[in-house]
Amino acid sequence: MSFLKKSLALMCVLFLAKPVFAIEEDGYDLWLRYRPLDSHSGSKLAQHAQAIVYAAEPSQTVNAAVAELRRGVGGMSGRTPATVRKLRDGALVLATPASMPALKDLNLPMVELGTEGYLLRGVRLQGHRVTLIAANSDVGLLYGAFAWLRLARTGADLATLTTQSTPKVKLRMLNHWDNLDRTVERGYAGESIWDWWSLPDIRDPRYVDYARANASLGINGTVLTNVNSKAEVLTPAWIAKTAAVADILRPYGIKVYLTARFSAPLELKEASTADPLDPAVAAWWKSKANEIYKAIPDFGGFLVKANSEGQPGPQDYGRNHADGANMLARAVAPHNGVVLWRAFVYSPESREDRAKQAFNEFKPLDGRFDSNVVIQVKNGAIDFQPREPFHPLFGAMPKTALGLELQITKEYLGFATHLAYLGTMYEELLKADTRLRDVGPTVAEIVDGSFHHTSSTAMAGVANIGSSRMWSGSHFDQANWYVFGRMAWDPRATARDVAREWVAQTFSAKPVVVDAVTEMMMTSREAVVNYMTPLGLHHLMDTGHHYGPGPWVDNLQRADWNPVYYHKADRNGVGFDRGPGGSNAVAQYAPAWSRVFSDPHTTPDEYLLWFHHLPWDYSMRSGKTLWQEVIAHYDAGVLSVADSQARWVKLKPSIDPLRHADVAARLAVQLREAQWWRDACIAYFQSVSGLPLPNGVRPPPLTLDQYKARRFSFAPGRG
Amino acid sequence: MSFLKKSLALMCVLFLAKPVFAIEEDGYDLWLRYRPLDSHSGSKLAQHAQAIVYAAEPSQTVNAAVAELRRGVGGMSGRTPATVRKLRDGALVLATPASMPALKDLNLPMVELGTEGYLLRGVRLQGHRVTLIAANSDVGLLYGAFAWLRLARTGADLATLTTQSTPKVKLRMLNHWDNLDRTVERGYAGESIWDWWSLPDIRDPRYVDYARANASLGINGTVLTNVNSKAEVLTPAWIAKTAAVADILRPYGIKVYLTARFSAPLELKEASTADPLDPAVAAWWKSKANEIYKAIPDFGGFLVKANSEGQPGPQDYGRNHADGANMLARAVAPHNGVVLWRAFVYSPESREDRAKQAFNEFKPLDGRFDSNVVIQVKNGAIDFQPREPFHPLFGAMPKTALGLELQITKEYLGFATHLAYLGTMYEELLKADTRLRDVGPTVAEIVDGSFHHTSSTAMAGVANIGSSRMWSGSHFDQANWYVFGRMAWDPRATARDVAREWVAQTFSAKPVVVDAVTEMMMTSREAVVNYMTPLGLHHLMDTGHHYGPGPWVDNLQRADWNPVYYHKADRNGVGFDRGPGGSNAVAQYAPAWSRVFSDPHTTPDEYLLWFHHLPWDYSMRSGKTLWQEVIAHYDAGVLSVADSQARWVKLKPSIDPLRHADVAARLAVQLREAQWWRDACIAYFQSVSGLPLPNGVRPPPLTLDQYKARRFSFAPGRG
Repeated sequence: MSFLKKSLALMCVLFLAKPVFAIEEDGYDLWLRYRPLDSHSGSKLAQHAQAIVYAAEPSQTVNAAVAELRRGVGGMSGRTPATVRKLRDGALVLATPASMPALKDLNLPMVELGTEGYLLRGVRLQGHRVTLIAANSDVGLLYGAFAWLRLARTGADLATLTTQSTPKVKLRMLNHWDNLDRTVERGYAGESIWDWWSLPDIRDPRYVDYARANASLGINGTVLTNVNSKAEVLTPAWIAKTAAVADILRPYGIKVYLTARFSAPLELKEASTADPLDPAVAAWWKSKANEIYKAIPDFGGFLVKANSEGQPGPQDYGRNHADGANMLARAVAPHNGVVLWRAFVYSPESREDRAKQAFNEFKPLDGRFDSNVVIQVKNGAIDFQPREPFHPLFGAMPKTALGLELQITKEYLGFATHLAYLGTMYEELLKADTRLRDVGPTVAEIVDGSFHHTSSTAMAGVANIGSSRMWSGSHFDQANWYVFGRMAWDPRATARDVAREWVAQTFSAKPVVVDAVTEMMMTSREAVVNYMTPLGLHHLMDTGHHYGPGPWVDNLQRADWNPVYYHKADRNGVGFDRGPGGSNAVAQYAPAWSRVFSDPHTTPDEYLLWFHHLPWDYSMRSGKTLWQEVIAHYDAGVLSVADSQARWVKLKPSIDPLRHADVAARLAVQLREAQWWRDACIAYFQSVSGLPLPNGVRPPPLTLDQYKARRFSFAPGRG
Repeated sequence: MSFLKKSLALMCVLFLAKPVFAIEEDGYDLWLRYRPLDSHSGSKLAQHAQAIVYAAEPSQTVNAAVAELRRGVGGMSGRTPATVRKLRDGALVLATPASMPALKDLNLPMVELGTEGYLLRGVRLQGHRVTLIAANSDVGLLYGAFAWLRLARTGADLATLTTQSTPKVKLRMLNHWDNLDRTVERGYAGESIWDWWSLPDIRDPRYVDYARANASLGINGTVLTNVNSKAEVLTPAWIAKTAAVADILRPYGIKVYLTARFSAPLELKEASTADPLDPAVAAWWKSKANEIYKAIPDFGGFLVKANSEGQPGPQDYGRNHADGANMLARAVAPHNGVVLWRAFVYSPESREDRAKQAFNEFKPLDGRFDSNVVIQVKNGAIDFQPREPFHPLFGAMPKTALGLELQITKEYLGFATHLAYLGTMYEELLKADTRLRDVGPTVAEIVDGSFHHTSSTAMAGVANIGSSRMWSGSHFDQANWYVFGRMAWDPRATARDVAREWVAQTFSAKPVVVDAVTEMMMTSREAVVNYMTPLGLHHLMDTGHHYGPGPWVDNLQRADWNPVYYHKADRNGVGFDRGPGGSNAVAQYAPAWSRVFSDPHTTPDEYLLWFHHLPWDYSMRSGKTLWQEVIAHYDAGVLSVADSQARWVKLKPSIDPLRHADVAARLAVQLREAQWWRDACIAYFQSVSGLPLPNGVRPPPLTLDQYKARRFSFAPGRG
């Protein structure tokens, strides 16, 4: 037998030797994998969970916590603990002051925990050494159970635990952009997990796993439908479907919300106008709210996109956002409901810099919104770009509850194919100093209410969840769901810490894996910025689907839908002048920033072309010309992807074959597409600058027309 | 503790006691479940598979067969056999004459097996007692391996095996109606499993399981795209995607086919016409075929829907179907490709009875099609109704290869919610006697080529497969995929036998389960006929989505899209007169049938209103009036669903909870909707007949207008 034949035969044997019922690593289990630990760690774990104690009648929520602990301990240690009522040594004890009055003897800082926080501690309780998961509420116990499992999985010393945590933001929400026909706008993970057609009768067991995953992060609300959804979502049939989902999510501490199309009463032909100041309209919404709350007593409320991108809204009747939001808010207020009103607005008529419009419309309304209205503001003033400076509304509306809207799905960052960990983007935003004072507050301190002492706080993430077996379309995109949830719980969490704990739970807790994968993640978003839109460039993506480069696009109906609107490149220079001589968007920031952003020499490189239009030979801090620097960034982006790819290849022995192959295939696509972005953008900018490529720079292999000719008719996510 | 509390606590314990890593019965494994047998059966099984012997270098196909045997034996017996080259006692031996020349000593009927058949037999081979899986080809071995596993799973005596089988139909194909944007026309199982966007780079492991499932049935071809697909499917990008799928399916003996939009050269702007007699057009298709075969050397060929429902075709240029089909056939002929040309045509202009049009267009072309053209004919002349008489084209084109097209997805039979086992429908069709002679041939004898001695034979099933975890949208819909495949292999198989073997593999081989579930299945399609369209009524479904009753619909653009066109109910009577005094469609059948169908008194009840318009007081064989009989059938349909529901409830102890609950939920929907169908149709027919309800008949609870008012804007499957 030749060597080749021998190798083939061996490979065949190895392939066939795979255990028949191996747990398949298809990604479905997310970060809740609970695979067996090594026997030493497993038995140590089991020592601390010899039984699970809950001393009272369990609620559905407590049952969920207990079931999760049994699943986790059983999976990791091979020993599933019994559930008992009486204390015993080595037990894991779930306790609220109500379920276990003896708790008060321990003098724990229960008040600090609030209604959702938890405390994990090894204690001696009525003579028994136990691990305590304590909270003031059942959902606090559930969060505590997940936290304990997370610590167990990531190698914490369970013997010396003394952890406590409370969420810093009140509403921690997913926003699904899921349509009623099960398509998902900007969804790259298959169709909606909400099988509306078969609801309420058929309840996919997956809904429970969705609830578990969210509860494990502390997410406590979910908007089931797209902000662009049809009015039918408010009809009785859909309310019944929503109620079925609410029943499944309730034990996990998750409230459901729906999107409200502002013109719904009109479109459903139940009113002759949608004017928010018309008493009949207000009555319609009040009655609709009553109908919903009858079916879903803890319904969260409405998310509204109004007067934006052609959607209906109060301005259609000469009213303002406060008129619209407050009318809806009053409909849900008697039920303790909330209205989340999006600040992502720009007008089809206005010729004003699009980056300025939301601020201009909302800032004057500060203080005019009801107390149960949250204005939901995107991280930046344009639209979920790979990098934007923080939105100037943060800090500018002290008398208004401002919620933060992040995009988890990667509309502008390579869909579910490109590896781009958004933790660094979220952290960059949350740590951004608004400079309202000499130092601070940060955006996080605005969002968590600590600066303006607002209690109505919210963080929303546009979900990247679909019917894809791996939920988010790729293994690494699960990390973006994860980090959103972790940072919504604690906006001061760092991207690196969260990445490390995600990797340890999802792939492996081995340091070689955690270190290398974390490094891939930490560099990934900057790579995307570099190969797509370096130095403050933005919105260069192709039309509609936003897949691939389209810096040349100039034929769309509205000026501010065209990439050329944003980069304004020509023979003389490139960039959007938002300084005092331009749109003066800089004036929307605090004076300290306004000064910095007004001058290209003080503007940080990463925002340079966001705020300034500069000549191609502008001299950069690096000593390069702007033209050289742009090209260098494009090349650096491509190189960074190649680095990640090399790191991943080396990890092959430590990662299961199925996931290793899938990630490798995606990295290969990403590298090819990073190169394409780099080539197409350089070809385009060269065509307008007329400049030669610097020495040593590889020319794009195709002509500009060839890049322009590429079409992607069936790109996903068109909704 | 109160009794209630005790019960709750006990339920809680039972719930939590579920093993942590139980193999979840989510339906993904289809009929290839291979769950552990009881220890006695398991060890008997293992005795007959102590090792797997294959004496030569394995091909990919042999590797697939070996892997399946190891997976199956390992799963069922707990002992995974080693793979070896040398014979030993108790081995399972895969052998072709080429891989094991000693085979010829056994004097087996190898010639009878042809290129795809297999033989299973306990033999003494070179001194060893072994179980032989013999075939003339590797794919024959694969089919044999699946057959052996099926027998093992369904309780056959493996010691005395002596089975051989060859497929009776040459092309056994799935037709996916899957669009390039991943929607599925008439798909009720989620979006397409073909993730076109991420192909060819990302190869979902699910594609392999799809191949396994199909190979287990002997399906050897699959048309990946919808007959209404866009022309882009023939562009280089899509050819590359198709090639990736072909590479994955090839080891499993499955060829890929694509749909060809007749106007593709025109739409892709690569020709100025699509006239099939224009040499430039023929050259375009030849070059396109060459391009495809370069990427996929064993590409199957094209499926074409032409001049039907507004699709382009040769008639747009004054040519006929033979002109169109032959032109395409000549493009693929040098590569041994096939053109499947659909006979489902009806013209927007013609006022002829739609049931007659396909026959009228195709019969005159008999003998004019090239030898590599198959005319693909639906089971009946209208469109996949719950019941239709067999299509009159079967037997009418002796000089033409006629393939049979069945619909597996239940467009007109309750989507994936209603339980309707189609085995009985397929069997009824295949056993139908065409009466070309005194007795016979049956439709099966036309389709399998035995009557006209055609070698080019085909059976195609419009797939019900999607991204749904359970593949077909419901557990029971998997049985329709299964029975299609089994009957394509052997059109003489009986629905009952196939149901029994499916139940034994899928749910449980326990007689109590097999008997009860088979009974549910065997009665299910007749139930649907009764509660939707009894006594030959047809096409009463609501507009577009075909969900729910719409017998009143009369406002669609084309007459033959309206239910009223098909039932013609008024005060005087109901039914479509297709007798000599009417459209005379009966004349398209053999004279013996034509006579029978011409007279309502000889026409079988089940086709009565298909062929006749009769007064409401027409006296039926039962002694009832037609009006009474229609109502009695509607009631019988509802009752039959209730019976199935009761049977299922009793099976609870024998079925895993997840699948039991899912089926129970669907049966509840089906019962509610059967009642709705019954109520709405009776309300409607009463409104036109003006007749009172017979004594004891429950009146519909709503008014006709209330039934009419129901709307289903987001029904799935709109493609």
